[in-house]
Amino acid sequence: MAHIHLKNELPGISGLLFDFPETAKPLCDLAETLLRKPHSLTSGERELIAAYVSHKNNCNFCHSSHAAAATAHLKDDYELIDAVLADINTAPVSDKMKALLIIAGQVQQSGLAVKEEDVLKAKNAGATDAELHITVLIAAAFCMYNRYVDGLSTWSPKGREPYKEMGKRMAEVGYLRTGQ
Amino acid sequence: MAHIHLKNELPGISGLLFDFPETAKPLCDLAETLLRKPHSLTSGERELIAAYVSHKNNCNFCHSSHAAAATAHLKDDYELIDAVLADINTAPVSDKMKALLIIAGQVQQSGLAVKEEDVLKAKNAGATDAELHITVLIAAAFCMYNRYVDGLSTWSPKGREPYKEMGKRMAEVGYLRTGQ
Repeated sequence: MAHIHLKNELPGISGLLFDFPETAKPLCDLAETLLRKPHSLTSGERELIAAYVSHKNNCNFCHSSHAAAATAHLKDDYELIDAVLADINTAPVSDKMKALLIIAGQVQQSGLAVKEEDVLKAKNAGATDAELHITVLIAAAFCMYNRYVDGLSTWSPKGREPYKEMGKRMAEVGYLRTGQ
Repeated sequence: MAHIHLKNELPGISGLLFDFPETAKPLCDLAETLLRKPHSLTSGERELIAAYVSHKNNCNFCHSSHAAAATAHLKDDYELIDAVLADINTAPVSDKMKALLIIAGQVQQSGLAVKEEDVLKAKNAGATDAELHITVLIAAAFCMYNRYVDGLSTWSPKGREPYKEMGKRMAEVGYLRTGQ
């Protein structure tokens, strides 16, 4: 049961966004900007970062929904996210994405944990400043969304199946609230 | 030196907001909504939560600027923030604020670290669901802002003096960007 009374039965962040529309607007705008606006990192790559950080924060709802969104963008069957979670170094992603995922993992621990040498590795692998910027900000933002969802103890479905349609909608329709 | 090249010399988050206006908009809208829109928790109380969480994340820029904003709202001379940082239990704040600050500190660790018994203590001390909601979301949001600022290794002035004018402006003018 959530720590506060919600007037709806929606899972995870959805129930909070529904009941608190004033804070929902900037939270949804931010997710849309970070994950869906045009960028040299694809939406699939950005959702992968979001899902990876949410996994490190043990946030079931955010991890499951953004893994489903990444999968919808990448048109795979969770192979990539599974490989990243198993071992970034052997996952079938570019050296640039490996380096960016390692930085995202450092941000999950603390902003101060990001190592200069790993930023250099990312740059040497071709990461631009804009790509480093959005990687750090996505990782930071999911440290917020994850804490919001779990800090208020919202419920979330278990397993991957319940998130497949949701992930498809996140990938195709996006995060802006109806009426925005 | 910041991990990425910035086209300005503004400190902390200011330099990032200036160079990346697309992400700046929802980030500023969120800060304005969390810290300055009318709420039963005063802006001074909300800035205190922001400063406290930023201190726990060792984020010098965010802590110093939001401590200055809290001080500007509260019209004190850092007495309250200093007392909170020394020991929440003996700080001259209400039992409700003590309980909310303890929850904010738990959110700083992880959303999953928030304890049911501490939520109950806050409710018994008079905290409403809206107050619990905004406390958790402010604490979560500063886990993002702090990681954004330090994850990109922005510079920040040391000491309290350089932040006093900034804090006054944050309290009186707010967070929305010029032209919004």
